[in-house]
Amino acid sequence: MSSNKTFAGNFFEDFRIGQVLKHATPRTVTEGDVALYTALYGPRFAINSSDEFARSMGLPRAPVDDILAFHMVFGKTVPDVSLNAVANLGYANGKFGVPVYPGDTLATTSTVTGLKQNSSGKTGVVYVNSVGKNQHGQVVLEYTRWVMVNKKDESKPAPEPLTPDLPSAVAAEALLVPPSLKLENYDVTLSGSQFTWGDYDVGEKIDHVDGMTIEEAEHQLATRLYQNTAKVHFDQHAANSGRFKRRLIYGGHIISLARCLSFNGLGNAFRVLAINGGSHANPTFAGDTIYAYSEVLDKIELPSRGVGALRVRLVATKNRPAGDFPYKKDGKYDDAVVLDLDYTLALPR
Amino acid sequence: MSSNKTFAGNFFEDFRIGQVLKHATPRTVTEGDVALYTALYGPRFAINSSDEFARSMGLPRAPVDDILAFHMVFGKTVPDVSLNAVANLGYANGKFGVPVYPGDTLATTSTVTGLKQNSSGKTGVVYVNSVGKNQHGQVVLEYTRWVMVNKKDESKPAPEPLTPDLPSAVAAEALLVPPSLKLENYDVTLSGSQFTWGDYDVGEKIDHVDGMTIEEAEHQLATRLYQNTAKVHFDQHAANSGRFKRRLIYGGHIISLARCLSFNGLGNAFRVLAINGGSHANPTFAGDTIYAYSEVLDKIELPSRGVGALRVRLVATKNRPAGDFPYKKDGKYDDAVVLDLDYTLALPR
Amino acid sequence: MSSNKTFAGNFFEDFRIGQVLKHATPRTVTEGDVALYTALYGPRFAINSSDEFARSMGLPRAPVDDILAFHMVFGKTVPDVSLNAVANLGYANGKFGVPVYPGDTLATTSTVTGLKQNSSGKTGVVYVNSVGKNQHGQVVLEYTRWVMVNKKDESKPAPEPLTPDLPSAVAAEALLVPPSLKLENYDVTLSGSQFTWGDYDVGEKIDHVDGMTIEEAEHQLATRLYQNTAKVHFDQHAANSGRFKRRLIYGGHIISLARCLSFNGLGNAFRVLAINGGSHANPTFAGDTIYAYSEVLDKIELPSRGVGALRVRLVATKNRPAGDFPYKKDGKYDDAVVLDLDYTLALPR
Repeated sequence: MSSNKTFAGNFFEDFRIGQVLKHATPRTVTEGDVALYTALYGPRFAINSSDEFARSMGLPRAPVDDILAFHMVFGKTVPDVSLNAVANLGYANGKFGVPVYPGDTLATTSTVTGLKQNSSGKTGVVYVNSVGKNQHGQVVLEYTRWVMVNKKDESKPAPEPLTPDLPSAVAAEALLVPPSLKLENYDVTLSGSQFTWGDYDVGEKIDHVDGMTIEEAEHQLATRLYQNTAKVHFDQHAANSGRFKRRLIYGGHIISLARCLSFNGLGNAFRVLAINGGSHANPTFAGDTIYAYSEVLDKIELPSRGVGALRVRLVATKNRPAGDFPYKKDGKYDDAVVLDLDYTLALPR
Repeated sequence: MSSNKTFAGNFFEDFRIGQVLKHATPRTVTEGDVALYTALYGPRFAINSSDEFARSMGLPRAPVDDILAFHMVFGKTVPDVSLNAVANLGYANGKFGVPVYPGDTLATTSTVTGLKQNSSGKTGVVYVNSVGKNQHGQVVLEYTRWVMVNKKDESKPAPEPLTPDLPSAVAAEALLVPPSLKLENYDVTLSGSQFTWGDYDVGEKIDHVDGMTIEEAEHQLATRLYQNTAKVHFDQHAANSGRFKRRLIYGGHIISLARCLSFNGLGNAFRVLAINGGSHANPTFAGDTIYAYSEVLDKIELPSRGVGALRVRLVATKNRPAGDFPYKKDGKYDDAVVLDLDYTLALPR
Repeated sequence: MSSNKTFAGNFFEDFRIGQVLKHATPRTVTEGDVALYTALYGPRFAINSSDEFARSMGLPRAPVDDILAFHMVFGKTVPDVSLNAVANLGYANGKFGVPVYPGDTLATTSTVTGLKQNSSGKTGVVYVNSVGKNQHGQVVLEYTRWVMVNKKDESKPAPEPLTPDLPSAVAAEALLVPPSLKLENYDVTLSGSQFTWGDYDVGEKIDHVDGMTIEEAEHQLATRLYQNTAKVHFDQHAANSGRFKRRLIYGGHIISLARCLSFNGLGNAFRVLAINGGSHANPTFAGDTIYAYSEVLDKIELPSRGVGALRVRLVATKNRPAGDFPYKKDGKYDDAVVLDLDYTLALPR
């Protein structure tokens, strides 16, 4: 007697505009997660590394890395949103709220905000706005992402197409700086970089120099840590008969690697305030070596005392040092480019 | 001057009936262990993932995964019991006691309950009953396992053969549900599965669908985390001249993988109550992809409010999806079957 | 517009005698780090494994492994001292201070104590005394190491050569035993070894028997955990055109492996008191299997109640069991020897 209790994920025709998906598996974030994050990527931002440094900034203790919080919030959405995804197409309007501390429990709810069937009739694009909250109901992160999802039954009618209005960048007024933050005692020796907000210019490009080679065990450990269940990351037996013959690396793994590499050149960018947009330009596989560079897109003055924001394009490449800043040719990403992330960072000024 | 201070483990002739082995290396379990367990296997049972969810069930915080507790208790026994084991033959009468929480310190004591020399005179079977307790002296797990152990000196006389009486399954009255547990507020949206005790039928088989490929680094990290010192898992140089030419994967690693895969189909099986029996049907090696299915063997009513138990056979396969439920042919395990675990699970009813 | 904000590390001509380097990235050590350390190396010293055992020794809880503390203190120094190092030449005069507990925040400051340009004019040797302190300003470890560092501009004049006076071993009076330590209740069953200080003889050699094969993911996870940023450990793309064609394993990874292997034979050596000297005799790479042996060099009586010290040479080999104690031939290390560490250990007496 075979059973039907396994959840195969939602298909394109299962989504409807306004649908609210309360995702399963709330997650208490711990010091153990932080240690693994350090082991997986080697972050060196002092605010996340040292309780003492975080206290000198007016925080109760070291918050967890913002991108780790992103992964935890994102991971919850995978079983409902992207188990049958063909591609993770983009991110927009990502706003970080209150910091996440070890001991906090995160849960995510998503709302379907856009649907557009593709002309093939075999797939469609689903837009969801996902909101991650802590156990006090405070928003820690919200963002929109859109994914291409398979239809199960191609005969199902296409929904009325709707594409949500999304800003090209999160507005300055929407950037949240923790109110208790104080930067008078910010120590640029301990932080590891002498460059603060005023030292950066729009248009400046920073080669982050270092490279990091990815092992299968590493990206699998990471992706499971985030309870991200997308099959393509874990099953080599199935991959053997797939398109790439390899396990695909979770795109968020590359975001973390690139962000950590960016320390060398942006060591005082202590907080991610917003994700304005992003795409995973090319797939990555175990054995690839990741490099990164940043380009300053904008400088934003903030009302908070002592804090300025930089809008930055973070580009990651594979198997090619980033010193010549590869990006796009004829509107198409260079083959070496694997991540194009437009985000906004806080620095002391 | 060479020394003789290295412990080579016990051989068959070193054991005697009634012998008590107080194992070394008590172990404080921490949030770090929990994070690693999540990274190694990707568990999603809400009770272990979220302190808030566990509190909604009447527990003080999220207990550690029951199989992680098993590994910690088991690991202690290896230096004394199975360092010279040829094979880990079976488990029986495994009963989980009080939940384990981060901060608890576990220690294990084993009693030899059976001995039977093999006809070859080169090996013998040793039965031990192992009891793991926390720092308050409360039993967290006890179980019997039997292993085939080499003799060092074949001329030593065989002991009087004794095989302990072992139940085919742990009796319903012996299943321990934490008394503080309350399930009125159990949230099947957050738990990730709508199916509760009443939805399962005896004879039902559930294909858990997903596959997980194992890397050398992963099983080594896991096995060391449990302070399991069996040499076959770690030493490729020695393995090069051994039978398999490969490092063997600790059988418990497969139990954890299969249990975590079983979430998809048994997501509300929030607690392992008993291990009725189990065998590692075939060896596994790095590169193998593990799949799993479950078969409901029995449904057990429990006196505890709102809780029911399922006796389940959990079968793991390697490099073969489990959709056609491979098991035995002519009384012999299918070559793809690597784990046959008979255990009892608690679900809300 | 390309930027110059990336720090390329110091070159030989950037150092001067007496220079104080206050290293960046203070680090709060957590239970997560301890769990990873356990997963990476499999330590079994009861004092570090069990809060209850540590309390029985008069400590507030389990301190972190001394070598983990070493890595954390050492990691901070890499960006300033050894990013352009050709070789890590040696250690001396390493003294462990107060134990490190989860929650402690470590920071490191180094002072340049020696400089000697090599005759080639292309490199020079830099001696630094590094002091790691906790958040209370207490010294947890200080040691001298010397590295060969590239010159960037060979035309820069050589400094006045100065080589610091370094003791061949840390003197008995300088060995620090935590004052609260009491060993009356030390349980040699739980510790896993019956051999205490009085059982060891000068000249005794102990083969630690077991072997541990290293995976790329493992040494990368470890080295990032310590926030050690030396490029040679992480970038296979660059290594492809380098001398070894491989990522080099951080020498400290071998120290940890060898120390953990030494448990089998030195299970009551519960504390590292001093590092008298050490060298990484040959490079190691992923796939190498590490073995270890110890030689007792000296027995030291300590004023502390119940504690004795052993000065021990810990030798690690690769891909060759250590039972015949390989060391040097004609003053040169055997090709299989990868670590020669002279250190001092505390044992109950």
